[in-house]
Amino acid sequence: MTDATQIVLAKRPVGDVTADCFRQETARLPALNDGEMLVASRFLSLDPYMRPRMSELRSYVPPFEIGKPLTGGSVGEVVESRNPRFAKGDLVMGLLNWATHTVHDGKGLRKIDPAMAPLQAHLGVLGMPSFTAWYGMKHICRPKDGETVFVSAATGAVGQVAGQLAKLAGARVVGCAGDDQKCQWAVREAGYDACFNHRSEHDTGAVLDKLCPKGIDGDFENVGGRIFHAVFERMNNFGRIAFCGAISEYQDKDPLAGPPKMFTIVQRRLTIQGFIVSDQAALLGDFVNEVGGLVKAGKLKSRETVVDGLARAPTAFLGLLKGENFGKLIVKVG
Amino acid sequence: MTDATQIVLAKRPVGDVTADCFRQETARLPALNDGEMLVASRFLSLDPYMRPRMSELRSYVPPFEIGKPLTGGSVGEVVESRNPRFAKGDLVMGLLNWATHTVHDGKGLRKIDPAMAPLQAHLGVLGMPSFTAWYGMKHICRPKDGETVFVSAATGAVGQVAGQLAKLAGARVVGCAGDDQKCQWAVREAGYDACFNHRSEHDTGAVLDKLCPKGIDGDFENVGGRIFHAVFERMNNFGRIAFCGAISEYQDKDPLAGPPKMFTIVQRRLTIQGFIVSDQAALLGDFVNEVGGLVKAGKLKSRETVVDGLARAPTAFLGLLKGENFGKLIVKVG
Repeated sequence: MTDATQIVLAKRPVGDVTADCFRQETARLPALNDGEMLVASRFLSLDPYMRPRMSELRSYVPPFEIGKPLTGGSVGEVVESRNPRFAKGDLVMGLLNWATHTVHDGKGLRKIDPAMAPLQAHLGVLGMPSFTAWYGMKHICRPKDGETVFVSAATGAVGQVAGQLAKLAGARVVGCAGDDQKCQWAVREAGYDACFNHRSEHDTGAVLDKLCPKGIDGDFENVGGRIFHAVFERMNNFGRIAFCGAISEYQDKDPLAGPPKMFTIVQRRLTIQGFIVSDQAALLGDFVNEVGGLVKAGKLKSRETVVDGLARAPTAFLGLLKGENFGKLIVKVG
Repeated sequence: MTDATQIVLAKRPVGDVTADCFRQETARLPALNDGEMLVASRFLSLDPYMRPRMSELRSYVPPFEIGKPLTGGSVGEVVESRNPRFAKGDLVMGLLNWATHTVHDGKGLRKIDPAMAPLQAHLGVLGMPSFTAWYGMKHICRPKDGETVFVSAATGAVGQVAGQLAKLAGARVVGCAGDDQKCQWAVREAGYDACFNHRSEHDTGAVLDKLCPKGIDGDFENVGGRIFHAVFERMNNFGRIAFCGAISEYQDKDPLAGPPKMFTIVQRRLTIQGFIVSDQAALLGDFVNEVGGLVKAGKLKSRETVVDGLARAPTAFLGLLKGENFGKLIVKVG
């Protein structure tokens, strides 16, 4: 019998997520059935998409259940296995509970090679956020040499990869982030041509006019709201908008509606495409080849914030929604 | 020397177009230069897209110029030619002035065969509106057997073809139109499964829930605004929105903004694609083969309103923007 420390959804947030939406518990895990295994979490990824799952929304992905552990992309170690595909000692990644230990049937988990990169890289530059960035940039934004691409949340786990991939494709890349330090990192380390602080620059339109003098051909949209409106107005003919997230809407009880003139979509022949990377599992091999190669060749920088201890996950998640992390946010669980 | 009767843009409308935005004039046309020809208009097509061209908007297509004739898709007859590609007596279609006669260099005009169909069909079911419907339905909405497709302005020149093409693809097709007579025609003649009167049905959401019980997979959007919001909310996962027009926005100084929750685009993985059929000239042959075949086989019904006399074009256009026409609106010029 194993006792797991786990964090469950205590109640659904209305508006801002608060600490009392979470509750830490100790749960006695059941004995393993055939096909199951016990996985000890090493690292847990915290990502903005978890916020909508805390609410009840009509969506393909079921909301988290009240009283049950939240789940998240994780790296863990198999400590006991009755599943023929996995052996004790295997390192795996996939969705695990926000917990020290998870009983799992192995579906959706895959083994990782610890020699390839630091374990937590599998949650960032080699993991889901990077796959998301690659899919949205490569298959939706499709920047061409000389075009201009905008990335909101430019230094977030997804944005930092999206921006670098656009740069590698030859585009002028402009982003925004929530503080000057992040903006400096974006330009100096990640190679953005420009990055502005959306908290201190209130006239988003004016700063975009300055930084994107030829308009915007591709938008990798993570934020929505006011910044999206200004970007939308500046999209060029045949522009592509990869709609990845809308973090400005997640907490807002009364979010800003879509852009004022939807007819712009016709006039400029825009394509706006929403996507969720878990639909694209068939392309995972292509992603690993391409982005894995870039990582090995040292062509992709990454930045992460690691928080120590599962107990700090809720507070870290609240900070993520306010942009307090810098880069990929990871909890070191065990 | 030929005197042309022509209708020029007298001033730009602000909000609703009014009769005094147009002025009828007689213009003495210049003698033909080499390469030019004189074309007498037979039929002039009036279409909603002309409304945004009356305003000054940032767009690929230049606005109409004040004091100059408006232009529109037309069928005409060459009455004098110094262009080697065209001879006197040729019937042609393409953009001509809102005028009895136009001096033209032949660019963008093509000859038509009067034996193929009544001349005005080249402005409707064999022309630009039908090409628009075909492109948006076939290349963007892409309905599959058993899916549900919604068409706003269901009996308009574009909508009536879009709906029939979706039906031929095996979809359940639901539309809306501005009066009961149009709705009856949509169901009885054009084969819509259902069509509601958006003027008498104020709760668009409720009527859509009833008529589209499985949600909406493809939306052929002509209208925008309140109806679009209700459709957007009911889009299924992986839904496609072909954004063809937004007639509800054209006259409105303060149009309804986009949908309240743009994050829906991500959650449902929607694709919204704006298009203008003139970009798709390379596909014209495919369109003519496919839709021409359907017309010959009697598989596409069409409905039109023909207004007699160029002088009535402005009034007819004002009516078009209010939905007073039924089907394709055509002016018999000469």
